[in-house]
Formats: sequence, C-alpha cells, structure tokens
Amino acid sequence: MADTEALLAHAVGARNVLAGAEIPPEYAGDESLAAVRRTPAYLVRPAATAEVADVLRIAGEAGIPVTARGSGTGMSGGCVPRPGGITVSFERMNRILEVDAVNHVAVVQPGVTLDRLDQAAAESGLSYPVRLGEPTASIGGTVATNAGGMHAVRHGVTRHHVLAVEAVLASGEVLRGGGKYVKTSTGYDLAQLLVGSEGTLALVTEATLRLRPRTRHSTTVLAAFASAEDVFRSVPPLAGGDLEPAALEYVDLLAMEAITNEDGPGLGIPASVRLTALGYLLVVLESRSAARLQEDVEAAGEQLLSLGAVDVFVLPAAAGRRLVEARERAFWTAKAAGADDIVDVVVPRGELSGLLAAAHAAAEDTGSLVTGCGHAGDGNVHLSVFQPDPVRRQEVLRRLFRAGLDRGGAVSGEHGIGRAKKPYFLELEDPVRIALMRRIKDAFDPGGILNPGVLLD
Amino acid sequence: MADTEALLAHAVGARNVLAGAEIPPEYAGDESLAAVRRTPAYLVRPAATAEVADVLRIAGEAGIPVTARGSGTGMSGGCVPRPGGITVSFERMNRILEVDAVNHVAVVQPGVTLDRLDQAAAESGLSYPVRLGEPTASIGGTVATNAGGMHAVRHGVTRHHVLAVEAVLASGEVLRGGGKYVKTSTGYDLAQLLVGSEGTLALVTEATLRLRPRTRHSTTVLAAFASAEDVFRSVPPLAGGDLEPAALEYVDLLAMEAITNEDGPGLGIPASVRLTALGYLLVVLESRSAARLQEDVEAAGEQLLSLGAVDVFVLPAAAGRRLVEARERAFWTAKAAGADDIVDVVVPRGELSGLLAAAHAAAEDTGSLVTGCGHAGDGNVHLSVFQPDPVRRQEVLRRLFRAGLDRGGAVSGEHGIGRAKKPYFLELEDPVRIALMRRIKDAFDPGGILNPGVLLD
Repeated sequence: MADTEALLAHAVGARNVLAGAEIPPEYAGDESLAAVRRTPAYLVRPAATAEVADVLRIAGEAGIPVTARGSGTGMSGGCVPRPGGITVSFERMNRILEVDAVNHVAVVQPGVTLDRLDQAAAESGLSYPVRLGEPTASIGGTVATNAGGMHAVRHGVTRHHVLAVEAVLASGEVLRGGGKYVKTSTGYDLAQLLVGSEGTLALVTEATLRLRPRTRHSTTVLAAFASAEDVFRSVPPLAGGDLEPAALEYVDLLAMEAITNEDGPGLGIPASVRLTALGYLLVVLESRSAARLQEDVEAAGEQLLSLGAVDVFVLPAAAGRRLVEARERAFWTAKAAGADDIVDVVVPRGELSGLLAAAHAAAEDTGSLVTGCGHAGDGNVHLSVFQPDPVRRQEVLRRLFRAGLDRGGAVSGEHGIGRAKKPYFLELEDPVRIALMRRIKDAFDPGGILNPGVLLD
Repeated sequence: MADTEALLAHAVGARNVLAGAEIPPEYAGDESLAAVRRTPAYLVRPAATAEVADVLRIAGEAGIPVTARGSGTGMSGGCVPRPGGITVSFERMNRILEVDAVNHVAVVQPGVTLDRLDQAAAESGLSYPVRLGEPTASIGGTVATNAGGMHAVRHGVTRHHVLAVEAVLASGEVLRGGGKYVKTSTGYDLAQLLVGSEGTLALVTEATLRLRPRTRHSTTVLAAFASAEDVFRSVPPLAGGDLEPAALEYVDLLAMEAITNEDGPGLGIPASVRLTALGYLLVVLESRSAARLQEDVEAAGEQLLSLGAVDVFVLPAAAGRRLVEARERAFWTAKAAGADDIVDVVVPRGELSGLLAAAHAAAEDTGSLVTGCGHAGDGNVHLSVFQPDPVRRQEVLRRLFRAGLDRGGAVSGEHGIGRAKKPYFLELEDPVRIALMRRIKDAFDPGGILNPGVLLD
C-alpha cells in the first residue's frame, strides 16, 4: 500500500495525495439520502489528463478500484468510494479552456461547475442551458449522469449538449471522440456512450459542449388547478405545442405550501386560490423579443385556462425568480422535512397521472407519505418518500419504480442509478439490456477497476 | 447451403427467400458511386421481429454474414451484401405502428420511409423533421447512418429523434432500450449506440421517434455573395443566432448553374447577379405565425447584407420550393454530370472556408474537379469529385478527409463509412477509438456475422 501511495504521489504530486484519515469526510459520498458513505484509501487530485492516465495505470496494475468525483452533488451515490479504493477528484481540473463564439461551443475540464460555465458563456451572449437545482454541479458529474434539469423540455439534456469528450480509459490510454460539430456519422458514438455511464467506462477529462444564444426575455406563469390530474392533462398539449416552454414544472400542494411558507406572501397567490388549488403548474416562457414574449404569455394563459386551470398568474420578475429558485431547492426542502429517500422516475408525459395515482396507492398501502414535484414536461417526477422503516421503504420504492416501468418509463430520469438505485435497477430492468451493458463494461474495463459496484454489480 | 435455404424458408416463408440468380440486381448495393456491387447468397424478407430473430439464429449457427437493407438509398455501400451472405430486407416491415399525439412520438418499423412517416405525422399536426435529399430513405437506414439532412441545423439529426429502439442481437435475443421520453439516466444508452452503427451491432426492428409541431409558415431566402469565403463567414453568426434558420445551405457557382439551367428563369435571379456572384447561401426560415415570419425574413435580409451579401432575394413560395428541391437533388445532378465520387466531410462551421481552400488545392494539384454544395450551418459539405483515374482519385479523397480531420472535423457528417469510406477511415481515425470500436463490436457480435467489412475490417 505504501508503494501505491508513493506511485500516486509521483503521478500527481505528494500534496495532491491524501490517505485514510487525512481525507476530509465530505469525500465519503454525495447528496444521496440512501447510499452508505465510505472513505477511500486514497484521494488524488490530478491537474492534467496525463496525470489521470498515470493514476489509472497505477490502479490497473494494482487492481485498485477508482471512483471519479466532481462536486459531490449527485443523488444516487455514484461517487461513493470503495473502501481500499482511489477517489479521483477533479477539483483542480476546473478550467474553462475555451468559449468559441464562432462555433458556439465551450471546451471545459470536468471540474468546471455549471454556474461558472454559464457565466463564461454569458460574456459571449451565449448560454449553457442545462439548469439543475444544484448550480455547483460539475460538468464531469453532469456528463456522468446525463443530468437533465428544469429546461430540458425545451433545450434537451446533457447528452444533447456534449459534442466531444476526451477521456482516459482503464488502460491509461486517452480516447478522443467527437468534435465541434453536431452532425457526424463515423461509427459508434463513444462520446454519447460515456454520457450517463457514471464513471464505469472511462474518466472524462475534457468536454466540448454546445452553447445556445442567451435568452433575452423570460417570464414565469403559475397556473393553479383543482387537481393534480388536471395539471397533468394540461402538460402534453403545452409541452408539444408551439409555445415551446423552457420549463413545465409540477408543484404539488405540499411542495407549494413549503415554498410559499418560506417565501411568505411574495408570490401574490390569493388565499382563496391557495385554499382550493390542489396542484400547480409553473410555466417558464422565453423569447428574444419582449413583444413576442408578451404575446406568448397571453397565449399560454388562454391555453392554460382552456385546459382547465382555475387561475393563472403572470408572476412579477422577482417573484417568478423566487418561485423557480424555491422549486430548484425542493430537494433541500424535502430533506429538511425529513424525507427518507427521493426517486426520480420518468414516464411518457401522458402517463404522469397514472404514475402519481400508483404512487399514492403505494403510500397509502404502506403508511408512507409520498410527495412530489416534477419536471412534468419531461414526464420526470421527483418523489420524496417519508417512511423510516427500511423494509417498508424498500417496498414503496420498488412499487414506484415498477409503476414507472409498467407505464413505459424508466427508473431514473436524471439522478442516475449509482449505488442507491442499483438493486432495483438490476431487479426490474430487462435482463438482455443488463447483460449487454456488462459486456460493454468488459470491453472498456476488463479489469473492472472503474467505479465497481455502481450501476452494475 | 440447401439446408440454410430450407431453414430460412421455415423462418420467413418460402416466398420470402430468394437465392442467387433469383435476387433482383437492385439488391446488390446502394447509391454509392464507389462501392463494388455484390449479390448475396440469400435475400430474406421478414415480416416480424421474431422472424428476424430466427434469421439471425440461423445465420449465427452457420456463421453466415448478415446485411440489413432498407430502401437502398445509402451513399457509402453500407448495405452492399457479402458474397455468400444473407441480406435481410425490411421492405415488408413497413408499418407505422403508432402516431402518439399525446407524447409526440411515432413508433415505426424500419421499412417505413421518411416521406410516409412525415405524412402520417402531418395528420396529427406533427412533423418528423429529418429531411434528406432522398425522401424514400427508410427509417432503418437513417438510424443506421445517423442521417442528418437539410434541417439538422435547427432540428438536429436522426440521433436526436431516436428515443427508443427494439433490435435483434446477433444471438437472436431481442433488445429494448429507451422509451417515449427524452430524459433518462439508467446506464449505457444502447439505443443511442445503435444509431450510426451501420448494421454492425444489431438489426433495428422498431424505432420510437420524437415528433415536433408542424411548421405553419416558412420562406426561402437566397443570398448571393461575391465569394465562397464570404458565404462561409456569414454562416456562424446566422447558425448560432436568434433567427434559428431551419436550413443554411451553401450552393457553389457550378451547382447553382446546374440548378438554374434546369429550372430556367424561374428563380428570378437577375443576370447581373448571376454573372458576378460566386457563391450562394440558401436560408430557410420557419415560424408558427406569418407576422413573425415576415419580421424574421426582414431581419435575416438585413443580417445577410451586413454580413456581406451582394444581394438577397426572398423567393416566391413556388420558386423557393423548387430551389430547395433542386438543392436536394444535387447528388443526382452531380451523378448525371459524371462525378466519380462524393464525400461529405464535416468540420466546425468556422472551418468551412479553410476546408474548401484545401479542397481546391487538392483538386488543382491532381488535375481533378471538386465542386460542392453543403449543409453550411452544420459544417457539412458534399463535395463531388470528378477524377476518372482511381489512383489520383484516391489521393484527392485522402487529402479531403485529412483536410477535414486537421480542422477538427470528421470523415463523414451523415453518409456514414460503409465500405466506400472505410479504408480512409481506418487509416486516418484515432487508433484508440478504432480499437475500442472493435471491442464494442465483439461485445455485441462475437461471431462477427453482422455486416462484416462495413465500418471495420
């Protein structure tokens, strides 16, 4: 072991290798409520691709597991270390290498955070529109989980923005795939294959990301509905329609109570509506012209009322921002309220109502509380599960996942499988697909050193 | 061999198995100008996924190569059969299984053509916006090559529309991946991996495709420039800007001559412009409202003039359609003119000018003619090479590909590698990437029966 430490120190510099008890406790896991936290044998902080390659060669020769880590904001335990393993933290590989305003791309290292990238893009009138609840998430982490966020309904998920990657393979070889172009047909798209692979195939050391023109004008519209079903019925025509909303978020009664309690009377929702509405839809519209935005807001209001909204509010800019921010903090609100786990099942958006009904049945049958808000436009709901008993909690989760799969959905829309959702994933997913994933994993990482125990056993 | 024929007849019905000389000559290849045409030992026409699975089991046991075939409109010889092999034609698996207007997706069999799908989508006010020069291309073929087409600059390529696939593996097992949702993080995205894999990993038997709201209003604007360089300089600000054009097509002087000769005076371009312009940019704008379209057309005209256009024409609807159609027929025009090969290099769009300069130098040095038009907004140019001598032609092609790669591009934007581009691809592409592709191929198809000789050796 001392030998390994010396080799790692040679690779990344002694000050960038920490061992055992020297490793600060925050490196033991992420934000998952369920994954057990672990301390690795070593924490290394490389500063360059060649150093990552050296670390992987050392790990490969010694057969030591390697876990990549960005900002540690994951929700499924994907960066929980293996005891005896090496955690590669990308905190020093945090440079924005280029914002290319001609080709509308950014080239960044994995430790760059979403908020920093978006700020840098803004200086060229551009934007990186992957907008998560946690803006300090790292690009590396968002690539590993194919993070989605609130604006995916219009702008797509991380996958749609990753044009190229540089990555280090388990062998220490450096792979480059893709480029500053969208259109390509030259065999298997390895950059796309790495997106969502949760650090199990290769370590991404650089990403080329598509940027978009920055939104000039946006408005938040809040629609109150008499029931959650009414909210969900209104989502497909809005999501697939001409207005192309940038966000279509469902907020249930409990989540809205938590938000508005926190915010006080600032949203301006009359008490009469707050007392009767059982579900809300938050619609963000954006446009390059104030006049078009105004037209779109009016059209959205009419459409929402025709789809059954009991009332529609165009929020003043500050209140709209606060509501969106509060929605983005929903995880923290749920955590503070004592949620025991959070799932993010995705279904075809037309199936949301059925999924929620199944969730309520599962909650009732097990004496649990299941509350949620969701990226309704994407069919992706975040359900907070309050159930302290682990056996009953497992039952609720299994029922939620199965309800999603039965409706043509999937276990996770954006949080990933990690360690926390893996048992359910391996139990419920098509075995042909799992077997093929294992063979792909072997093709990349025959020694099985990359994030073992995450995603697959 | 007779045994194989009997087994195949049992699998798909005797009338759907043709052998040797019974096989019509059109099954010997595609539209590639370079790939050598071959007749397979058997042509089979399955009608269902289970029949495809039976065929693959029979082929796997006998070690017979299998080539999938859609409409045969490919450009790289990807469906050229192997002598002694089985060609699986999807012509009978041509049903549109569902147009789901709630979730805005279509579920189709691989033999459905682009034009039929778009017509079916239109009945629900929707559209499948992958628009190729060849509207009879099959969905299976477009998935195999990740086909792009003219509207990719706004709407994305095939990859961005494939939400799920059903596919038969070499083992005969049926794989299902993805669903009627955009957002997902459940491990390796196998549907995305199959897109662009040219029939070498699995045979796609069903695809779930994203549809978009149908465009209500569109206009074609034609800008004349004094030089090709001026055209290319204008592309990045237009492509990455607010107007979000649905197409940004470069048409060079020779291509425009061919088009306008065919069309006669219908485009209304004054002789004075035709005599001085050396390059054209065709801009398609679309909008849901006629008023907004009119504003956008005016803004585009001003922007084009400020970017150096010598003249800008808003084409009458019929002329615009004819020009777009003529642009889409450019391949046939080049073929009729005697082009010896066609390449479709892609580069970052800011590098188009350098690529064209390198192409002209390569043409001059080898006494060849290289002419082209291109999806300029995507950095993807279609270059027709006129050079009857095969050795010199090979030199021109190698120089074109290298010029693309040196500028951060790739060998093919949308035509694929197939058989025709494979020698160049294997010579010029990063060997780490090729080696990894081979390992992935082995993970899917250990017996190497799926389209051997295409993409990889």
